[in-house]
Amino acid sequence: MITDKIKHQIRSIVGPENALDSDLDRFGYSYDSSYVPLRPENRPDLVVRPLTAREVSSVMALASEHEIPVTPRGAASGRTGGSIPLRGGISLCLDRMTRIVELDEGNMMVTAEAGVRTIDLYNHCAAKGLFFPPDPASWKFSTIGGNVAENAGGMRAVKYGVTSNYVMGLEVVLADGTILKTGGKALKNVTGYDLKSLFTGSEGTLGIITQALLRLIPMPKKRGTLQVMFGSLEEGCATVHRMLQAAIVPAAAEIMDRFSLEAVAKYRGTSLDPTAQACLIMEIDGESDEALASQARQIQAVAEGCGALAFRVAQSQQESDELWAARRGLSSAVASLAPTRLGEDISVPRDAFPEVVRRIRVISEKYGLPIAVYGHAGDGNIHPSILCDLGNPEQEKRIHGAVDEIFAAALAVGGTLSGEHGIGITKQPYITQALGDAGIKTLIAVKKALDPKGILNPGKIW
Amino acid sequence: MITDKIKHQIRSIVGPENALDSDLDRFGYSYDSSYVPLRPENRPDLVVRPLTAREVSSVMALASEHEIPVTPRGAASGRTGGSIPLRGGISLCLDRMTRIVELDEGNMMVTAEAGVRTIDLYNHCAAKGLFFPPDPASWKFSTIGGNVAENAGGMRAVKYGVTSNYVMGLEVVLADGTILKTGGKALKNVTGYDLKSLFTGSEGTLGIITQALLRLIPMPKKRGTLQVMFGSLEEGCATVHRMLQAAIVPAAAEIMDRFSLEAVAKYRGTSLDPTAQACLIMEIDGESDEALASQARQIQAVAEGCGALAFRVAQSQQESDELWAARRGLSSAVASLAPTRLGEDISVPRDAFPEVVRRIRVISEKYGLPIAVYGHAGDGNIHPSILCDLGNPEQEKRIHGAVDEIFAAALAVGGTLSGEHGIGITKQPYITQALGDAGIKTLIAVKKALDPKGILNPGKIW
Repeated sequence: MITDKIKHQIRSIVGPENALDSDLDRFGYSYDSSYVPLRPENRPDLVVRPLTAREVSSVMALASEHEIPVTPRGAASGRTGGSIPLRGGISLCLDRMTRIVELDEGNMMVTAEAGVRTIDLYNHCAAKGLFFPPDPASWKFSTIGGNVAENAGGMRAVKYGVTSNYVMGLEVVLADGTILKTGGKALKNVTGYDLKSLFTGSEGTLGIITQALLRLIPMPKKRGTLQVMFGSLEEGCATVHRMLQAAIVPAAAEIMDRFSLEAVAKYRGTSLDPTAQACLIMEIDGESDEALASQARQIQAVAEGCGALAFRVAQSQQESDELWAARRGLSSAVASLAPTRLGEDISVPRDAFPEVVRRIRVISEKYGLPIAVYGHAGDGNIHPSILCDLGNPEQEKRIHGAVDEIFAAALAVGGTLSGEHGIGITKQPYITQALGDAGIKTLIAVKKALDPKGILNPGKIW
Repeated sequence: MITDKIKHQIRSIVGPENALDSDLDRFGYSYDSSYVPLRPENRPDLVVRPLTAREVSSVMALASEHEIPVTPRGAASGRTGGSIPLRGGISLCLDRMTRIVELDEGNMMVTAEAGVRTIDLYNHCAAKGLFFPPDPASWKFSTIGGNVAENAGGMRAVKYGVTSNYVMGLEVVLADGTILKTGGKALKNVTGYDLKSLFTGSEGTLGIITQALLRLIPMPKKRGTLQVMFGSLEEGCATVHRMLQAAIVPAAAEIMDRFSLEAVAKYRGTSLDPTAQACLIMEIDGESDEALASQARQIQAVAEGCGALAFRVAQSQQESDELWAARRGLSSAVASLAPTRLGEDISVPRDAFPEVVRRIRVISEKYGLPIAVYGHAGDGNIHPSILCDLGNPEQEKRIHGAVDEIFAAALAVGGTLSGEHGIGITKQPYITQALGDAGIKTLIAVKKALDPKGILNPGKIW
């Protein structure tokens, strides 16, 4: 598909060491962090690792000329198969574009290339007292380009929003190699269509994001951790709602059901209150210890009004780390209970959280598959984890049935297929149900306008 | 252009009383709140006032079939000519679609039809303790559909953002009559491209917005007003910067230069400190009187550190109203000084505010035209008002020269043509300079994808 001549041209653009086509390299770029099975046909023909937007532009011009599929890739930490090449062609890996181009302290903005890791960006800004809030679970290895392409969220979204809330501008290489710069440092900007929002979350199907201008906020001076135990999940959800309606907004509000709590207790060898059916772990932040103490008191009053069993404020960094360890270790704890942990990502209106959890329990019963429920209670983003064995053909039908019904439940309560993972490959079968014919027609019209030859990340989303 | 047969069909869709073609009606729909001169050729052939999205859909289907231009219109309070029909055809006025469809207190969201006035939406939500922050100056008559189409801002943007920060979902009638529903009540939503952001601010060129789902926040319990006088505009800007970098965020931070202050003093017959070169008026809000008092003290410390001449906290609602009256009456006060007040709307990186004001003063000198400078200091959105006489042919060249240079100055410091008014007709000559060829090419590609016949608000933006 990619002739030797084209390979030679690409090698002359990025350097021979950055255009790889050995079997091992092609295999290494054929999968990501999703549960899409390994398939030989998902190997790219060529892995290309450019260093600059200009190199990306030259590669795209060639790809466009020869109609070669191009699948962009950051750290491949995505959960829905977004960076898996489905049609061969080029795996365009942006991991060498790791420059933090500018930290503008005056305007509180940072410009970073696509391959910068989230944690590196965070630390770079934090050193100057500036805060980049989006914190996807993969933030220690995920890249800014990938975060923007998937519109990554995280735990702090309840207070601080998701990646798109921080994107002020983008440099994007279009399908034909044109370098587009959109947005800028003006906080209010209504000049032309909001292209930066169109590319954010477009999963590599509209253009190659090579650089992002991101808004920052002052780093909160103080942080605290709270843990609240409840006799029911509903009480935990009610606590979150009442807090938010009273304008008490935690920096994170994570909920775990009984099943998740048991998994953690087993995994960490700790004991668990037999009456506890749910746990809320919250981060609070503010400008002073007094502000934090006042917030904690208000939250305690709300939680107790909702029937909380126990309320705990971490008294030290160590205690805070311990409380968060339960949440952060949850995926591993749950994963240890079965050969496969099929972690999903649905998002529902905040007040539909208890209802969708009830439906998930019914689905778990119906298909005889344990499902741990946890997630970002503050914004209705739930990660149900189905414990199963994908290698067991007997389970296959049941697993698919359960997944289908979980998505149907999310849509039935007014929710959507994905809060922060994207659609990629894994959620394609449900997209028409979610967006309707008019929605799909509009997505395809936009896609054709910006990528008329269909070379950008083909086979994704719909 | 619109045959009697088509008029008959449209009358059967919306009712004969809602399809107007008298000369007077056509004249009445040929202008808006911008300085685009009255021109007979800007009259629509037919004014259509539908009541439902279904009626809009039927009208658009007909318009598409017969390639009739359609210019959507809310309250015509736009400042850049967005609702002026440039190619005849239909003026599609959404002012009868005034239903507030649902106030969802649990999820803190409201669904409103396009024709609902901003103030009515605000009051409806406020009655339940919920706050819809976007407050364009025209909020007493502007409509939600227009706010969304122009991505309206306002004074509170510094703390609360602009309209797009509140749009969760839209109902849009596409050029061919298809009714698209996009977005929803899930706070995190990455299912497909972000179409709601694409339509927000698209100035009626991509679809007819018929309904919006808007996020609300809890109404702050307390509000206060501060007034600070400075010996220089730079000190006022520095105060705003330092506050924001210290995470002290006022709900509004409006700055006025000496010229504006003199205009207000003259208009209202009040006296003015001869040393005052600039004034900041701020709204602060919070949950308690103590929180407000603490914020005011912090702001005072920052302002005094920047050399403030005088600091005043309103002690009563009456005093607060008086302080704000100076700002709210500013346009009228400035307008009273000359036959024409040509109010512009540029937006620059926050820390470029003093620099662009310096450049505007040079432009004022060069062209011999007084320019009042005021605006939203907290977000770099400036409204320079050129005092002139558009009816005086001798001034024409100078006025155009000054406007050209103001836009050039905004772009030169990394800013943009419009913070909240849109491009419409009046800023078209500058759009390529602002967005570059790649930007314009991309806008046009998107436009062609969604409106292949070019019938939606033709002649606008580029």
